[in-house]
Amino acid sequence: MTSKSNLSVVLAERPKEGITLGQTFKQKTSQAPTADDLKDGQILVETLYVSLDPAMRGWLKDTRSYLPPVQIGEVMRSAAIVRVLASKSSLAKPGDILHGLPGWQEYAILPEGRFDPPFPIPEDCRITDLLGVLGSTGLTAYFGLLRIGEPKKGDTVVVSGAAGATGSVVGQIAKIMGARVIGIAGDDSKCRWLKEELDFDVALNYKDPDFKTKFKDATPDYIDVFYDNVGGEILDMALARAKTFARFVMCGAISQYNSANPQGPKNYLNIIAQRVKMQGFIVFDYAKEYAEARKQLAQWPAEGQLKRKETIIKGGLPMCEQALVDLFKGANTGKMLVEVKNPEEASKL
Amino acid sequence: MTSKSNLSVVLAERPKEGITLGQTFKQKTSQAPTADDLKDGQILVETLYVSLDPAMRGWLKDTRSYLPPVQIGEVMRSAAIVRVLASKSSLAKPGDILHGLPGWQEYAILPEGRFDPPFPIPEDCRITDLLGVLGSTGLTAYFGLLRIGEPKKGDTVVVSGAAGATGSVVGQIAKIMGARVIGIAGDDSKCRWLKEELDFDVALNYKDPDFKTKFKDATPDYIDVFYDNVGGEILDMALARAKTFARFVMCGAISQYNSANPQGPKNYLNIIAQRVKMQGFIVFDYAKEYAEARKQLAQWPAEGQLKRKETIIKGGLPMCEQALVDLFKGANTGKMLVEVKNPEEASKL
Repeated sequence: MTSKSNLSVVLAERPKEGITLGQTFKQKTSQAPTADDLKDGQILVETLYVSLDPAMRGWLKDTRSYLPPVQIGEVMRSAAIVRVLASKSSLAKPGDILHGLPGWQEYAILPEGRFDPPFPIPEDCRITDLLGVLGSTGLTAYFGLLRIGEPKKGDTVVVSGAAGATGSVVGQIAKIMGARVIGIAGDDSKCRWLKEELDFDVALNYKDPDFKTKFKDATPDYIDVFYDNVGGEILDMALARAKTFARFVMCGAISQYNSANPQGPKNYLNIIAQRVKMQGFIVFDYAKEYAEARKQLAQWPAEGQLKRKETIIKGGLPMCEQALVDLFKGANTGKMLVEVKNPEEASKL
Repeated sequence: MTSKSNLSVVLAERPKEGITLGQTFKQKTSQAPTADDLKDGQILVETLYVSLDPAMRGWLKDTRSYLPPVQIGEVMRSAAIVRVLASKSSLAKPGDILHGLPGWQEYAILPEGRFDPPFPIPEDCRITDLLGVLGSTGLTAYFGLLRIGEPKKGDTVVVSGAAGATGSVVGQIAKIMGARVIGIAGDDSKCRWLKEELDFDVALNYKDPDFKTKFKDATPDYIDVFYDNVGGEILDMALARAKTFARFVMCGAISQYNSANPQGPKNYLNIIAQRVKMQGFIVFDYAKEYAEARKQLAQWPAEGQLKRKETIIKGGLPMCEQALVDLFKGANTGKMLVEVKNPEEASKL
């Protein structure tokens, strides 16, 4: 097997605030690994789609977190859908398409633990759902909402970043659980999608000048569950409207990740007065239960209860940097992906 | 029975920030109620000690909270130790000394629900413990630490406001549970008391210029449980040192109550990264379990495992206002009380 070139995108410098195009990351071309490089338990993969997630901004910070920071010069960490080209693992065989962590590069060798064993893509699902409802996105929505939010029939559930990958799944699961669901998003077309296609009870555009009043009017019985992807002022408003014993699911804070001085929730005294439980989580904490959750997450789309949109960026790895910047501007509806190689295209290795 | 005069202290105006002496409250003299005024289920009481609590500042704010705000012109709400002078309730008889809610006044009629049925003061306890370890203070420490904090043997437990009424009990219960306990207080003599008499592992003065470094050094394995009475910068530092799956018991925020613009915890993103559970509570939520908890809270002092100090202000109700201001300055060690009438003094009714 002759070696090929392997395009990757590596971290060039840590951003102080927002990501700077051409500065934060740089492209690098090296020699692709081959089947000859495989050790026992490893697989050689080619990347089909990489996932763009708000959490990636956190991985660029040199602080204690749930994962070590990406190092300068290191390939940017990223979840991806990959195709197995060669395997010395009993968990996957050539041709398998699966979810793994190759980072932003065309080819990678992955040891067990850095890829999920393949499973049949359920009817009514598609390959890209491996990064959506069947992947971290869906699992994050599922475990955060059900284990921390614990919505009950009739509860008022508010989701920020509601038209995003995770938020849109959260709201739909909350509807399935019988809750009244209010989604907050950043433009009117997203709000229409939430209301008209995903059946949210209320969808509010936080850029609307009357947003505060509308938010208050939409929560006459206060908020039982707040699923936060955004942080900042929306979190503060939700705290002001927290019902007694409300559950605040702390999933993300996209409004704060680019800030050198994140804004703390000044209404946090309501955590005491209203006995709020505010709890953070990382989807990995539930890894042992993924298989069980995926069964449920595959069934809802089949029943027409879980719809989704994708924002797929063509142009391969050179587009990742721009896509990540755009993600923070809210350019996506639903899951944002960069297509590195169309799965219909035969492998050229 | 001839009627007597009844001194009370009423809310005169809502403070915008700190309490202003001679302005926030005013004294009022009216006719004391008598046994003739009692309806079924009520008791007539005279106030012996009133409790000074940071939470009282919150009761002056006209906002949605766990209790309705004290109204302008209304007697200031306060827990107290009272003596029953006459009773039409089967729950208490004349001469009983018990915990009730007469507010800042000498005499009051209390319906059932605004007083606790009397119980024998356990050996090694004293009357004033009805507002301390056997009262809301002790119960607040007990339920907050054990139900939300859930300290395990070997855990690092950090308590802010550690020399205060609640904090000093929290730290000692945490020690009993086998935790390593770090107390934060506002002067060296308080810290000595925590270390030398209450056996805290570490006591830190937050006014020490090296406090940040010392705090970091004292938490090499990070923090499992943070019991917060203070808020503000100390809460932020604790978030920065939170261990994965830490529990943050949100009891109070004395540093923020006087502020028109409370400071939100800017390190709150660590709630996500470290999967912190930050939960508020109010002791009333556990009312059904008070009796059981009090048994335990009475036993520890008898075993010498739960020590306490009181800061008792003489001079009666006119001193309450100043005492409350002083409480916010940290003038007290342990429970702060104003003596309205010495229990040894015979009732003059």
